[in-house]
Amino acid sequence: MNNNKFALGVDIGGTNIKLGIVSDKGKIISSSMVSTNRKGGPQEVITQLKKGIREILSKEEIKIEGIGIGAAGSVSSKKGTVSNPPNVPGWKVVNVVKIIKEEFNFPVYIDNDANVAAIGEMLYGAGKDYNSFALLTLGTGVGGGLILDRKIYQGDTGAAGEIGHISIDYNGRMCNCGSKGCVEAYVGNHYLVEIVKEELERHRDSKILKIINNNTNLLTPKTINEAAAIGDEYALQIIERVGFYVGVALSSVSNLLDIDTFIIGGGVSAFGIPLLDAIKKAIKQNVLQALKDRIKVIPAMLKNDAGIVGSSSLVFYNS
Amino acid sequence: MNNNKFALGVDIGGTNIKLGIVSDKGKIISSSMVSTNRKGGPQEVITQLKKGIREILSKEEIKIEGIGIGAAGSVSSKKGTVSNPPNVPGWKVVNVVKIIKEEFNFPVYIDNDANVAAIGEMLYGAGKDYNSFALLTLGTGVGGGLILDRKIYQGDTGAAGEIGHISIDYNGRMCNCGSKGCVEAYVGNHYLVEIVKEELERHRDSKILKIINNNTNLLTPKTINEAAAIGDEYALQIIERVGFYVGVALSSVSNLLDIDTFIIGGGVSAFGIPLLDAIKKAIKQNVLQALKDRIKVIPAMLKNDAGIVGSSSLVFYNS
Repeated sequence: MNNNKFALGVDIGGTNIKLGIVSDKGKIISSSMVSTNRKGGPQEVITQLKKGIREILSKEEIKIEGIGIGAAGSVSSKKGTVSNPPNVPGWKVVNVVKIIKEEFNFPVYIDNDANVAAIGEMLYGAGKDYNSFALLTLGTGVGGGLILDRKIYQGDTGAAGEIGHISIDYNGRMCNCGSKGCVEAYVGNHYLVEIVKEELERHRDSKILKIINNNTNLLTPKTINEAAAIGDEYALQIIERVGFYVGVALSSVSNLLDIDTFIIGGGVSAFGIPLLDAIKKAIKQNVLQALKDRIKVIPAMLKNDAGIVGSSSLVFYNS
Repeated sequence: MNNNKFALGVDIGGTNIKLGIVSDKGKIISSSMVSTNRKGGPQEVITQLKKGIREILSKEEIKIEGIGIGAAGSVSSKKGTVSNPPNVPGWKVVNVVKIIKEEFNFPVYIDNDANVAAIGEMLYGAGKDYNSFALLTLGTGVGGGLILDRKIYQGDTGAAGEIGHISIDYNGRMCNCGSKGCVEAYVGNHYLVEIVKEELERHRDSKILKIINNNTNLLTPKTINEAAAIGDEYALQIIERVGFYVGVALSSVSNLLDIDTFIIGGGVSAFGIPLLDAIKKAIKQNVLQALKDRIKVIPAMLKNDAGIVGSSSLVFYNS
């Protein structure tokens, strides 16, 4: 007998809206994708969202318990709103939950993408066995989700978890947020690429330059990773340094919240074991004595499906 | 008709054990003090603790609901234990709650001094009207207590709230904890005095030197405060700087936890309004946009009685 329940998970990204019907064990039964059409403004994004949901629901004859939505930007899970998502012209505050509930008549839940990923990792992924942990997503931005005592910690307005904006140097690099020394200003994709571009002037023998044919406009975290994989010393240094900066920020999180488990996801986490090792080393170096032996730094498990699976998990998490 | 309930609050400090019978409105009915006799080791401290409790309970004919205890060091409120308190020879782990419960047959609760102060401020003090806040105690150490959604956040092992060990400079001053750039290494009493002693060489005209008769061994945060009160420019600079360092650390807390309210207590907080203003300015400068207008930095209200009143509040908080 199959007692599984199912939910629809929806991941609203800048380019595509990904959708999937997912079991309450985190297994994807069916998935699809529509373009976000973000340049069309909020009306167009909502139209695409409804279209995607309608199509996947009509294709599959599975009873779902509800719809879970993950979105970038400032999300209030209480109110159901998404405010000022990146790069959607004209979108201020939209009550996505209300709109989708009225259209499809299911329970609808929403949260920001980092929180959704954290809940997904807690229920089905790397966080299954931990009472409390912080999820860090290393990508263009450095996002975070906090699971405290098996609950997502959202803060008073739903904005908690901004690990990327922990300052590791009060006099450090300028961050786009206007502050100085935010860890994101060292390891966020664009910042990292910018730093490495500059430094490559002094590392003319690095294999990174071969991989990108000396065209630094082609430089990405991926090319750094490729160079590291073939033993390029400078590339390995970069990864070590990214780990150090991240580790310093996470040791502050560890001391503040008495958290010992960190799950690392996102694009830059493709740096793999060397990065995880460097992060762990830096946390252990900086954290208070009582925490040192407890520190665990582990890779996220949900990878590319984190958005869909995490979003669907909102339904089971909340019910 | 008087419907007040009462509890015994006990504050175990390094020098004295302070005791008070306190109402569930935070009003002290009766208080007393015994020496901690910490050099006598754990047995002697426990003997003094029992003696103090026995005396105050026999003196007052008020029915109490229980006993709340605040202690320095590593406290597990779940287990009831105090581990490695500062400067008590031979004290490893002692189950204080078990001992006091068996002796006096009341409900007994315990927590560390920063958490106890935070609970006290939440129930009777500056935190009464706030859903979430961080309490910062600026003294020899820089301690913290986190109130999230009207609950004390203790973390998995009870060690949460170490705001003093948030690093504000990954390459900064060495902290006694072994890490670099902890905010405590800039503003903790001893560190601050050490920094100012050095700098006074270059501020021979500062009024601080007059107040301490050029004997830098007499330098304390209090003398810095006295000089600031009579308009000494260098003293005011110091306070501004303390506020800046604290503010940088608190802006990381604010971004991470979506907290906008900070209550400042402890000895160094005697720097008063100029310090609070400097902290607020630095947080607003560094925090994410959505938080800037919400930031509140307010003085603790319980002052000298924070230990007794806060400890007593554990009884009402937990029941």
